[in-house]
Amino acid sequence: MTLNTNAIFIIDRSKKKFEVKVMETDTITAISTPTGEGAIAIVRLSGPEAISMVTGLFHGKDLNEVASHTIHYGKIIDPTTSEVAEEVMVSVMRAPKTFTREDVVEINCHGGMVAVNRVLEIILGKGARLAEPGEFTKRAFLHGRIDLSQAEAVMDLIRAKTDKAMSVALKQMDGRLSGLIKRLRQDLLETVAHVEVNIDYPEYDDVEEMSHEVMRQKTKEVHKEINELLEVAKQGKILREGLGTAIIGRPNVGKSSLMNTLVQENKAIVTEVPGTTRDVIEEYVNVRGVPLRLVDTAGIRETEDIVEKIGVERSRQVLKESDLILMVLNYNDEITDEDVKLFEAIQGLEYIVIINKTDLEHKLDLDKVKELAEGRPLVTTSLIKEEGVDELESAIATTFFAGEIETGDLTYVSNVRHIQLLKKASQALEDAMAGIDQDMPLDIIQIDVTRTWEFLGEIIGDTASDGLINQLFAQFCLGK
Amino acid sequence: MTLNTNAIFIIDRSKKKFEVKVMETDTITAISTPTGEGAIAIVRLSGPEAISMVTGLFHGKDLNEVASHTIHYGKIIDPTTSEVAEEVMVSVMRAPKTFTREDVVEINCHGGMVAVNRVLEIILGKGARLAEPGEFTKRAFLHGRIDLSQAEAVMDLIRAKTDKAMSVALKQMDGRLSGLIKRLRQDLLETVAHVEVNIDYPEYDDVEEMSHEVMRQKTKEVHKEINELLEVAKQGKILREGLGTAIIGRPNVGKSSLMNTLVQENKAIVTEVPGTTRDVIEEYVNVRGVPLRLVDTAGIRETEDIVEKIGVERSRQVLKESDLILMVLNYNDEITDEDVKLFEAIQGLEYIVIINKTDLEHKLDLDKVKELAEGRPLVTTSLIKEEGVDELESAIATTFFAGEIETGDLTYVSNVRHIQLLKKASQALEDAMAGIDQDMPLDIIQIDVTRTWEFLGEIIGDTASDGLINQLFAQFCLGK
Repeated sequence: MTLNTNAIFIIDRSKKKFEVKVMETDTITAISTPTGEGAIAIVRLSGPEAISMVTGLFHGKDLNEVASHTIHYGKIIDPTTSEVAEEVMVSVMRAPKTFTREDVVEINCHGGMVAVNRVLEIILGKGARLAEPGEFTKRAFLHGRIDLSQAEAVMDLIRAKTDKAMSVALKQMDGRLSGLIKRLRQDLLETVAHVEVNIDYPEYDDVEEMSHEVMRQKTKEVHKEINELLEVAKQGKILREGLGTAIIGRPNVGKSSLMNTLVQENKAIVTEVPGTTRDVIEEYVNVRGVPLRLVDTAGIRETEDIVEKIGVERSRQVLKESDLILMVLNYNDEITDEDVKLFEAIQGLEYIVIINKTDLEHKLDLDKVKELAEGRPLVTTSLIKEEGVDELESAIATTFFAGEIETGDLTYVSNVRHIQLLKKASQALEDAMAGIDQDMPLDIIQIDVTRTWEFLGEIIGDTASDGLINQLFAQFCLGK
Repeated sequence: MTLNTNAIFIIDRSKKKFEVKVMETDTITAISTPTGEGAIAIVRLSGPEAISMVTGLFHGKDLNEVASHTIHYGKIIDPTTSEVAEEVMVSVMRAPKTFTREDVVEINCHGGMVAVNRVLEIILGKGARLAEPGEFTKRAFLHGRIDLSQAEAVMDLIRAKTDKAMSVALKQMDGRLSGLIKRLRQDLLETVAHVEVNIDYPEYDDVEEMSHEVMRQKTKEVHKEINELLEVAKQGKILREGLGTAIIGRPNVGKSSLMNTLVQENKAIVTEVPGTTRDVIEEYVNVRGVPLRLVDTAGIRETEDIVEKIGVERSRQVLKESDLILMVLNYNDEITDEDVKLFEAIQGLEYIVIINKTDLEHKLDLDKVKELAEGRPLVTTSLIKEEGVDELESAIATTFFAGEIETGDLTYVSNVRHIQLLKKASQALEDAMAGIDQDMPLDIIQIDVTRTWEFLGEIIGDTASDGLINQLFAQFCLGK
């Protein structure tokens, strides 16, 4: 009995890769807490010499002798001056029960940039190498503690802007997506092997036909599961990245009031966008679990200008890049040409119409608005009287999620890379299914099934190239 | 034999205060790492229920049973949803060998704002109280682990902008200043007691005269030591806070070049000033251990305008508030009225004259400049050719420190509060010495000596009021 050589080759290649991966054994170090004044700052080390390096600098217990997972008070001495560099608490964690599966030491300093940088410099002076971004997590991956999708979830967790996004990341980190992907891959592999055996040792005459039938059924099942994942992926991506939201409307319709209402009613998280100038900030507003990313509040406030510059390409671009547009009208005013132009600009995009100032005289032609709004959701509010806000939030939530978001049982795919690989896997399976329908030879069909198996493997890192892996971890923050 | 009742009263009051202080026993919690995306974020708890509170939320080992100073992997469960809130490492440290001398638990989360805030909320839900800024350190103080000047040094360390400033803070944290202050207080107390005994049980007839002599000698000694501290205090304050530096000069003399040279040649640390708008930043440049605080670089770049608006009050104010002014002239140009006006504006202030563009034709009347510069340091540079920079840096260092800064043996008083108290103590001693010279009765003199003793006590917190203590710790960062 022989198995398909292609499959064996892949398994072997995977194993070989794994062996190559575990060869990185130098000791790395980095500051693992955010920059800034804080009560605690941590310098982390990982690698075979992590403990001995710190021992040589530590005025306190002999860290070579202490038990694993214990904490020790002492001082870090600068060997060049013999002066005390910092008063610290040192955590010693021995392999393999650590984040990286290597020896890990964490030096808790008093916070402050100078002290922690000084400690880092002293550690580097002892021969440790400054870790690349994400290198600690990369080691956890290379040592097999977590797979690639779990590693990516670690970063998603750090960048999560809402509880729901965090919940999705935690489940992915816990291996829920990985488990599903692994099961699908196993199914595919077993089917291929099963068909091979049948062909080599036929018990029945109609083996070719039966094998086609087995293939048809299994590819259909797996295809269905992948497409279910893809169906909720749009929601997952929104949970992860937030819904890019623009507020537009003529001057004085209540855009600022709307913005303030959303920010005040919900917990806003303001973050600086890394790698950009200090002026670009993002404001996250959590509306019933949907994170609205009010991109660059300065920009949104500039939308006063959008009305005037509506013909300008840049303004159209801003709108096209938004996931959601909140179009505000004034109930106390008749529809103007400007309003009509705005409606034209957002045609075909995802938007909600907000008719504000219901407390004032109703001069707006509602039928005309409904006609312009092409059946999009329409909410009336009096933001000044805080009326209609619930309805608005409900409209936002139902536009993207059918009601309340349920993260409990669903496995959300939130990562663009994963979504693309799932789409490729789905397409490869469709190719296989078409081949089966056309009674193509089984080895032709198996090529498509094997491609599916590889695409899925790339999600969890089993068949990922070193280049891809390096690129993925480079997006991590330092010290992780 | 009876001792001076006043002294006894003070000692008693101090003891009583200490007993009152140790009564705070609720459990406090806060996020102890800086805000932002980082690899690790820490939620810290301190108090009698710290361990039991976390145990109830922790999916992992029973933390009530674990040894002190050990680290445990597990998950924090949100009791309201029974969902996993975060994957964590929990450090358990039992009283009294902890930062606060209470039970301390540190929950190391995966970084990221949402996850760590969620964990904090869950802990608060268990009945912990959100710690006030500096409250962990305050507890360390109230429980007698550190004194007030050591607690203040903790914050100085966090805010340190240079190695030297850090070194000063570390020594203060280590109790070097406290030790000196305690010794001086002990000397004063013993002298008072000694004199009292002599008066009550005179062995000699000239006891009054002899007591005066003892007093004279001891007050003189202590006065000398306090004044030595005050003499280097100016340097200490500069090390701690940086030297507020303004660069002035007519347009095109090379102000921007000077600024860029200083920033490029030295390690610049840019910090946001807490509590101000995002626009106000400070740039620290470390020149031979002297931290130059280039206050609000935007403002410095605005000094182009100072020339024109030299009569304006605001400009004069900026200059007056600077510790150091770098006045730049152009060697390739004759002295103008504007230059003369600038010299008038900085008359009597600390400044260094930089004659730039030595690479071009020398048109400047050096004798005239020397006359205007009133004997202040004068350096010639060609910033474009990087010439004279060493001399400039040396001039900056020697203006405030006689050559290289030596933090090795000196005890630096760097804190404004401490400096003010030392000045008051010095003044009170001078009052005492004057009284002795005028042969005033000993109990009158003792009042001044006791005042000195109290002022010194306020530095280390022995005689500090609750109001003062609360105010001091309120300046700390959250979670410390």
